[in-house]
Order: sequence, then structure tokens, then C-alpha cells
Amino acid sequence: MSRPDNSAPAPNGKRVRLSPAERRQQLITLGVEMLREHDLDDISITEIADRAGISRGLLFHYFASKQDFQVAIVRQANADFLERTAPDRNLDLFSMLRDAIERYIDYVSENSSGYHALLRGPVSARPEMAELVADARQATADRILAEAPIPPDNPDHPRLSLAIRGWIAFVEEVVLTWLRDQPITREALVDMLVASLPALALNADLTAALQQ
Amino acid sequence: MSRPDNSAPAPNGKRVRLSPAERRQQLITLGVEMLREHDLDDISITEIADRAGISRGLLFHYFASKQDFQVAIVRQANADFLERTAPDRNLDLFSMLRDAIERYIDYVSENSSGYHALLRGPVSARPEMAELVADARQATADRILAEAPIPPDNPDHPRLSLAIRGWIAFVEEVVLTWLRDQPITREALVDMLVASLPALALNADLTAALQQ
Repeated sequence: MSRPDNSAPAPNGKRVRLSPAERRQQLITLGVEMLREHDLDDISITEIADRAGISRGLLFHYFASKQDFQVAIVRQANADFLERTAPDRNLDLFSMLRDAIERYIDYVSENSSGYHALLRGPVSARPEMAELVADARQATADRILAEAPIPPDNPDHPRLSLAIRGWIAFVEEVVLTWLRDQPITREALVDMLVASLPALALNADLTAALQQ
Repeated sequence: MSRPDNSAPAPNGKRVRLSPAERRQQLITLGVEMLREHDLDDISITEIADRAGISRGLLFHYFASKQDFQVAIVRQANADFLERTAPDRNLDLFSMLRDAIERYIDYVSENSSGYHALLRGPVSARPEMAELVADARQATADRILAEAPIPPDNPDHPRLSLAIRGWIAFVEEVVLTWLRDQPITREALVDMLVASLPALALNADLTAALQQ
């Protein structure tokens, strides 16, 4: 294999030499940026190579295949997603939940095309992509369980764990649907999502109360 | 086109002549039966033709293509699903919800492979299948809204409609996850699902109560 040419035109016209690791990261970052407004399969390898100022052939020095590149993009998008929605532990439980949900809605709004495609499009059926999406969901579920005021040895833990998994599906569906025609205000959406987690988590007690 | 031979061996060895409509329905019914334990794409056209006692070629007198046959199978599966989960209006609201959820869990348990594939497998990404699944969800959402003790002109209607859509995603995810390793009893699962609908539907009031 020939030595890749890592130089690229800088804004001042000079070519910037990137290390292989930097170049790889640059290509992934460009891919994640394009994922905001494109379905993963609509991201053009040629366009990314152009933006990076390298040839299409050189891009494949860093990624074994288009699929390999796509997996790297989605892996980075997952990491960004988890960073963007990380709980702020300086806040009390309800404020922490509201704050994280607001940032989740911002994230989905800003990345609507790629996020929708990843969760609902043809891409979502590809095993390697489904696994990455499942990983992000699991990481979110683990975070919520870690903050829940219920110790892991509590007998209610398996039910709570199942409820949180379902809650994530609830939130995804509600936010993706809301984005299409925004039938309620963003504030009402946030209120609904914030309330839904404790409502589901505590629901065994509530049924009894509601049925009386 | 030659006239199709509609006769098939009956249990007593004689051939039974079916009308074209009856034959078509027989083939669809066989497909729906196989969908219980198979992913849609794993249903063998040859095996269905064999079971019906006709040739593979004759099957394609009734369906333009394999895809056309698959759509007919899923359409019938949807109709069966909606019939199986129809609300029993002789019951009060909570009993009606519990009864329908129990029948939903039975349905998913009995049709787990095909149902899982249709909602989560590669099949789910095909536009015509995604549309049929969306139709069944919408029909379920419409049923719930029709029973909800809130008139259509209530200002809370758009939020409730969004919450019900999300609740369906919650129920699907919880039941499909539960089926895998059954971390809680079926009774606890039913309790959780029954409680979750009013918990989500009423959540605006609940938040205030919980935050105090």
C-alpha cells in the first residue's frame, strides 16, 4: 500500500499535514456533521473526501469499506449523543431529568434526518447499526437506573428496568412524532416527558389509587 | 394464461375444488399460520403451495409476486391482530384495558417470531410493511382515543393523542423485551401495562403532585 498523502488545503491555501489518527477523526467528524441532515446511506463518500481535501481513494486508506466508515460515523454520533444528553449531577432529580430531556429534544431537532433514519429508516434494520442504536439505548437506561432512588437489590428492580426500557421507546416515538407537525408546544412536550418517567416508574401504586 | 387447477387433495384423498377467492384466502391463511413461527422472509412459497396441494406456479396465479403475497399475508395478520385485541365494550374502562392487554400479550406470545420480525427485523424497514404496521398502530390508537373519557374537542386532545402513540411504542418494547427472558411474572407485566396508560394520559396533573 502506498503511503497516504495526509496534506489538505488549509483556509489560507496552504496544505495542512494531519497525522493518520487526526485525518481519520476529521473524516468521521465530517460524516457526523452530514448525518445531521442526511440519512446515513445518503452521505456521499466523494463529498466527504472533497470537504477533507483528499481523494476518495485515500479515504479508503482509513476505512476498510463504506460500511466500516458508516459504523465509525454512527459510533461517534452515539458518543456525541451520550455526551449531549449526560445528566448534570449538580441538579436535583426532577431538574436533572428536565434538563436532560430538553437537551435530548435539542439533539433530535438538530439531527432529525440522521436520527430518524437510524431509528426508523432502512438503515435501522442493518444488524451492525441496530446494535449501535441498542448500545446507546442501554447506556441511557443504565444512566437512568443509576440515578433512580432505588437500590439494585430492591425486588422492584427488574420491573423498573423493563419500564425504563419501554420509557425510552416512548420518548423516542413521542419526540419523532412531535417533530413532524409539533401538535403541542415544546414546553408541553417537555412537561409530558418529564412527568412520564416517574409516572411509569411508580405506576404499581398509582393503579391502585386510580382504580378506587 | 391457462385456467388454474383449483383442486387439491382433501383429507379423504379426493380433490376439493375451491373457488379462486377461496383458494386465495386459503393461501393467505397458510401464510399467516407460518408467520407465527417464522420471519416473513423465511416463509417458503414452495412449502405453502405444497400444504395447499397446488404447484408453486399456480400460487402465482393468485398473487402477482412474492412481495404481493407477503403484503396479503401481513394485511391478514393485521386484521387478525385487531380482531384478537378488540376492546370488549361490556366491561368497565379498566377491565376493558386489562382484558385487551392480556389478549395482546397472548397474541404476541403465540406469534412471537413473525411479530418481532415485522416490528424489529429487516422486514420492518420495507416501506410497504412499515406502512401496514403503522396502520395497525393507528387503528389501535384510534380505538384507545375512542374509549378515552375525553371529548375530541378537549384542548388536551393533541397531547393525549401523542401520549397514546408513545404508549403503543412503550407496550411493544416492554412486551418484546419481556418475552425474551421474562424478568417479571406475567401478572406483574399486565399490572404494569394496565397502569401505564392512565399514568401517561394523566401525567400533567401527576407531575405537580409528585413534585410537591
